[in-house]
Amino acid sequence: MGEFELIDRFFRRPAAAGRGVALGIGDDCALLAPQPGMQLAVSCDLLLEGRHFLSTADPERLGHKALAVNLSDLAACGARPLAFTLALALPAADEQWLAPFARGLLALADAHGCALVGGDTTRGPLAIGITIFGEVPAGQALLRSGARAGDDLYVSGTLGDARLALEVFRGTVDVPAPVFVAARERLERPIPRVALGQALRGVATSAIDVSDGLLGDLGHVLRQSGTGARIDTGQALGLLAARRSPSGPLPGDERLLDWVLAGGDDYELVFTAPADRRAAVAAAATASGTPVTHIGCIEAEPGIRLVDGNGHPVVSQGRSFDHFS
Amino acid sequence: MGEFELIDRFFRRPAAAGRGVALGIGDDCALLAPQPGMQLAVSCDLLLEGRHFLSTADPERLGHKALAVNLSDLAACGARPLAFTLALALPAADEQWLAPFARGLLALADAHGCALVGGDTTRGPLAIGITIFGEVPAGQALLRSGARAGDDLYVSGTLGDARLALEVFRGTVDVPAPVFVAARERLERPIPRVALGQALRGVATSAIDVSDGLLGDLGHVLRQSGTGARIDTGQALGLLAARRSPSGPLPGDERLLDWVLAGGDDYELVFTAPADRRAAVAAAATASGTPVTHIGCIEAEPGIRLVDGNGHPVVSQGRSFDHFS
Repeated sequence: MGEFELIDRFFRRPAAAGRGVALGIGDDCALLAPQPGMQLAVSCDLLLEGRHFLSTADPERLGHKALAVNLSDLAACGARPLAFTLALALPAADEQWLAPFARGLLALADAHGCALVGGDTTRGPLAIGITIFGEVPAGQALLRSGARAGDDLYVSGTLGDARLALEVFRGTVDVPAPVFVAARERLERPIPRVALGQALRGVATSAIDVSDGLLGDLGHVLRQSGTGARIDTGQALGLLAARRSPSGPLPGDERLLDWVLAGGDDYELVFTAPADRRAAVAAAATASGTPVTHIGCIEAEPGIRLVDGNGHPVVSQGRSFDHFS
Repeated sequence: MGEFELIDRFFRRPAAAGRGVALGIGDDCALLAPQPGMQLAVSCDLLLEGRHFLSTADPERLGHKALAVNLSDLAACGARPLAFTLALALPAADEQWLAPFARGLLALADAHGCALVGGDTTRGPLAIGITIFGEVPAGQALLRSGARAGDDLYVSGTLGDARLALEVFRGTVDVPAPVFVAARERLERPIPRVALGQALRGVATSAIDVSDGLLGDLGHVLRQSGTGARIDTGQALGLLAARRSPSGPLPGDERLLDWVLAGGDDYELVFTAPADRRAAVAAAATASGTPVTHIGCIEAEPGIRLVDGNGHPVVSQGRSFDHFS
């Protein structure tokens, strides 16, 4: 199968809906036409077999996840998805892999009105590079630098379950089947919080998505905002969905807390908002259908302090994942 | 070296100049702010070691070429470069490789006022994914679909020399040292025709950049325009710079013509313009300092006809390179 036939067969769609896309796949460049007053938010991710996913990964879920991690970056900026490009290195033009991969990728793209506008395919070790574009009103993007002492600290959805699933795959923990099924869904089909990100424009003072782990990603916000944070570990532990399962015991609390604080692969939003905007945060959560948990606060003193429900210090071995450390 | 230190050390630059870039590296997304009335041209390429370059490739030249092939796509649309993202998979955070790679990449970026606004680095087999953004006045992008019967057919610069250098590396041909040095420069440091592309807005009826070979890439234009073309092979052969070298003989004419017509890796523009716009084409060539050669014409009959100076048919084995064929 030739390169052009491959693109035609699996990735070309009927003409893009038109919102923001003037020209899609098929020329030297795609042409995007943002609305007047809009800025274009851009992010890119590169996923490699063996590093970010296993060769046995289900291709449909992989297609979903490859786009989800990029949509999550748009969400963290409060941007509305517009379009994306796909650079794909493949060992072979294998229809059994390409058809479900494209299905998973394009189903999520369609759900967010995000058009595939260009790409590049080549033969090589499996690698998936996506660059995504969203639009956000000028000056309204959620940045990492806006957290202020006194702000509340929030996390969307759940944390730690993706890492729990990974540890089951690694054989370091055993959990009841229903717990594993749910955790695996979190690992393989993360839900980018796109609607919440947009609802938080004008409410949140800063935001980032949790890809490398809560502490590490929050650390970027704190450094760029020149602040520190206090996290209630009791509230944080409540973010682990598996812990709320009635179906059986889970391993000791120390590892669970590490997975919540530094597990990675969560693709939730961690964000800050002034304490007097709690009603607005709750309204954004409701409007976007996304659970949001208040887990702590921003403080002037640099660093992250973990405290229990009584405000006493808690020690954790949790640390962020850094691809070259 | 951590991922973030790596980005900081080699790729982060003083704050972007501001033209079209509202926020550069360092947040979940970069923010682009196109001028009112401008569309955003987007293109992406993925280069893999062993497929697109050898492990022995000079990293500074590789940095240049990785961006050049993307700038060439903007050129083919008549777009002005604005910004790019870089997804980089590296076997190791090797300073001896990264420093010259970043130098070659950023020198060309600076020359075109094209800011690095985001990226992703990960450990893995060497792969370079670039997505590039340019701006073009709405409705003025040069497309593949605009060629009309009667149009003149032009090529910028030279063709076939990159392939000649590749064949020297492969050991299938031997040429005098100065010829090889010049041809290697064409292979390893292609010149994207960015100024010419912009100068051709409102003049050319269609354009594409020659990456896979003249016949193959022209074929895309002809299919999308519903036309055919006639090429004067005498004019085409004149595009091989090595042929104009006084330093010695070159292999038989049949292979030379194949390299000109289907060698690939040229990164020149092939474009069409109405026959009554010859003065405007010449003015665009002069204004952009880019040589342009009239090599044939567009015809209503589909297909590509190769003719000699007397209009008699010429047969060539030249065919385009297709990554999955």
